[in-house]
Amino acid sequence: MSTSLQILFFVAMVILCAKLFGAIAARLGLPLVLGELLAGVFLGPTVLNIGSFSYFAAVPDANAVPVAAVFKVMAAIGVVVLMFVTGLETDIAMMRRTVAPAFWAASGGVVLPMLGGCLLAHYAGFGWPQAIFIGTILTATSVTVTAQTLVNLGQLRSKPGSTILGAAVIDDVLGLVVLSLVIALSVHTSHSGGNGWTGIAITLARMAICLVLLFWAGPPVTRWVFRQASRLHGPHSELAAALTIGLLLAFLAEWLGGMAAITGAYLAGLFVAATPAHGKVTDDLRAMTNSFFGPLFFVSIGLEVNARQLAGRTGLFVLLVAVAVLGKILGSGLGARLTGFSNRDSLIVGVGMIPRGEVGLITASLGFAAGLVSPTVYVQVVILVLATTLVTPPLLKMAFPRGVPETSKTGLGEFPSLDELSGAVADVADA
Amino acid sequence: MSTSLQILFFVAMVILCAKLFGAIAARLGLPLVLGELLAGVFLGPTVLNIGSFSYFAAVPDANAVPVAAVFKVMAAIGVVVLMFVTGLETDIAMMRRTVAPAFWAASGGVVLPMLGGCLLAHYAGFGWPQAIFIGTILTATSVTVTAQTLVNLGQLRSKPGSTILGAAVIDDVLGLVVLSLVIALSVHTSHSGGNGWTGIAITLARMAICLVLLFWAGPPVTRWVFRQASRLHGPHSELAAALTIGLLLAFLAEWLGGMAAITGAYLAGLFVAATPAHGKVTDDLRAMTNSFFGPLFFVSIGLEVNARQLAGRTGLFVLLVAVAVLGKILGSGLGARLTGFSNRDSLIVGVGMIPRGEVGLITASLGFAAGLVSPTVYVQVVILVLATTLVTPPLLKMAFPRGVPETSKTGLGEFPSLDELSGAVADVADA
Repeated sequence: MSTSLQILFFVAMVILCAKLFGAIAARLGLPLVLGELLAGVFLGPTVLNIGSFSYFAAVPDANAVPVAAVFKVMAAIGVVVLMFVTGLETDIAMMRRTVAPAFWAASGGVVLPMLGGCLLAHYAGFGWPQAIFIGTILTATSVTVTAQTLVNLGQLRSKPGSTILGAAVIDDVLGLVVLSLVIALSVHTSHSGGNGWTGIAITLARMAICLVLLFWAGPPVTRWVFRQASRLHGPHSELAAALTIGLLLAFLAEWLGGMAAITGAYLAGLFVAATPAHGKVTDDLRAMTNSFFGPLFFVSIGLEVNARQLAGRTGLFVLLVAVAVLGKILGSGLGARLTGFSNRDSLIVGVGMIPRGEVGLITASLGFAAGLVSPTVYVQVVILVLATTLVTPPLLKMAFPRGVPETSKTGLGEFPSLDELSGAVADVADA
Repeated sequence: MSTSLQILFFVAMVILCAKLFGAIAARLGLPLVLGELLAGVFLGPTVLNIGSFSYFAAVPDANAVPVAAVFKVMAAIGVVVLMFVTGLETDIAMMRRTVAPAFWAASGGVVLPMLGGCLLAHYAGFGWPQAIFIGTILTATSVTVTAQTLVNLGQLRSKPGSTILGAAVIDDVLGLVVLSLVIALSVHTSHSGGNGWTGIAITLARMAICLVLLFWAGPPVTRWVFRQASRLHGPHSELAAALTIGLLLAFLAEWLGGMAAITGAYLAGLFVAATPAHGKVTDDLRAMTNSFFGPLFFVSIGLEVNARQLAGRTGLFVLLVAVAVLGKILGSGLGARLTGFSNRDSLIVGVGMIPRGEVGLITASLGFAAGLVSPTVYVQVVILVLATTLVTPPLLKMAFPRGVPETSKTGLGEFPSLDELSGAVADVADA
């Protein structure tokens, strides 16, 4: 037995359960993604806990790696590919028209959860540094689940859909600014003192350099790569080029810019969407994400949490979830409403921004390492991330008018011209 | 920095280099697969050694896993998916007609390298137990590279192509019989004594039970799963079902039967090929293997070896490679020739059986652990596996008549009926 053999069985179980639970959810009129997420909860420590089965828990030999750790890394590739496809399927002309609402939705969705989480935590007995950190954890949105739900509803390219995706990119930038400020402040107020502001400056400079580089060099380099790839001998060269660009920009966003890898992957998808190869590439990648990378990522979320650990500590947790959910609905919703969205579209934007993801988990683990987040709060934050992810698909489906059918295909309309893309890129860069 | 971040860059580099080297090879008139294999040699310890770059060599923290180990596991999934697609693309009617030549080609290709390797090693100064073990290492064929070359040449469904694939399955069974006999003998002759023959009996029984189970239950279960999958809500359910079956049968072949995982994956592909969904599933999986799983696996082979370690020890190595190559060309070729193949088709079958793979490496590591294979010989065996894999694509291309064009598509003709499949399955089970 080797890790390679374990993972064959593990991945087969993951795909099988994800598809079964997804199909059951769809038959009950619930979103597919909710089913795949619940498959993870079922396989994870909350119910079955397959990671602890002696077959999977065994580490074959000294040089081998645990199957759970390998799966986690594969799921991280999965979320990058998922967000890359989301970028590919974005309606860039629509996104260009929704830059202003996206900006205000992102801002409102950062301020309100921050304030609400901070006040709630302070009221619950935490000191201000801890309370501010808990507020910070509640700010960062991760829209992979929202995007997949929008795809299933055929609404990814709608006005609120485009606003949510634009707001997610801006939210990532704002969330990082807030996080670096909070860390700098907590360093400033703690004994070591001093270089907290230098830290902020470096963080912001890295992010700015990375964003400028991506928006300036990304589109022309992508076009050049695809021109070369279309001339290469060998099958599926353009698909391979697309994957390479998606993985590389995800890497650069996090490594160079300190942002979330999924933000880089999403931007890469936008750039590739403007190349002539996008149609075939999108179809092939959808097959890969629906059958392999999607199940891996959505199940991995459920595998990470153990809802049993909540027992007897539900009070603060329920209030935290309420702040996390209402903070985004009201904050992002108001931001959209103030820029002229209808009440329903504002609600959709607010609901779409609810899910927290890996950025919230990273923030929490930074605070955990710095002693600002206790183990009890850390467990609650991890389950909060799952809870916000679980409530979003059904809430989002309810927020849309009745009669929007659950469909397996995106309504791919006209694709934008390169000029439109450049315009959108310029607008985002200006914002 | 985390392993997840490292792997994004690592996989991007692997896909990029594989496609570039593949395209260069194709432009020079060489097989695509040779280019992808050489990309691994280029990235591996022989030239660049990217695994030792400080960025990839660093293990982020105590809970993290090394990126190279994760990549190895992903490549193992890759080879399973590759062999599954090979099964899907097999012409089952043709395979049914080539069961007898496949059996004799497999047998000849086991006997000759075994004898040749054993005599060469004994002549070079090894004792009989060691010499027999070295001979055993040379028996096991791994036809993934051959299959990919046949796909690129549009010859996978030809008479010699089908013979090679059938012979590979039979070779895996024969190789395992020889290996268990040799291990039992070495246990028998060593101090512990006694239960060697029990070990043989158990090994053979496991394999027989697994094969009977696969051939008896595989086709009807696969049909049933696809009937259910086609009714499931949700996109790409049949593709997900295919991947699940491929991974599960690969797992069962190794876990239950003690055979190579790729043998199970190949059989799963044969079963799925007889379902109505095979066309769409094959197209989608080809996109996945050409852009992702193929580069991962072919590059991983080159990453494993360090040709520099050969320096000053080339004498025995060159002779071993010669025995490995000629043993299969003559042994498998004669087997095919004796069952009525033309000289050219016999040559193609012999050349196609040359590549050794993970079974040879596993055998070598078993012998290494048992003290029957010295570290020097072990390094040579690993490089021998790479060498046999590298020489096969160009030799195979040369063996075909001129005018066979390198193409990106398989010549998918008529697909076999279910009756034809059952017949083929019965024939293979009888053989």
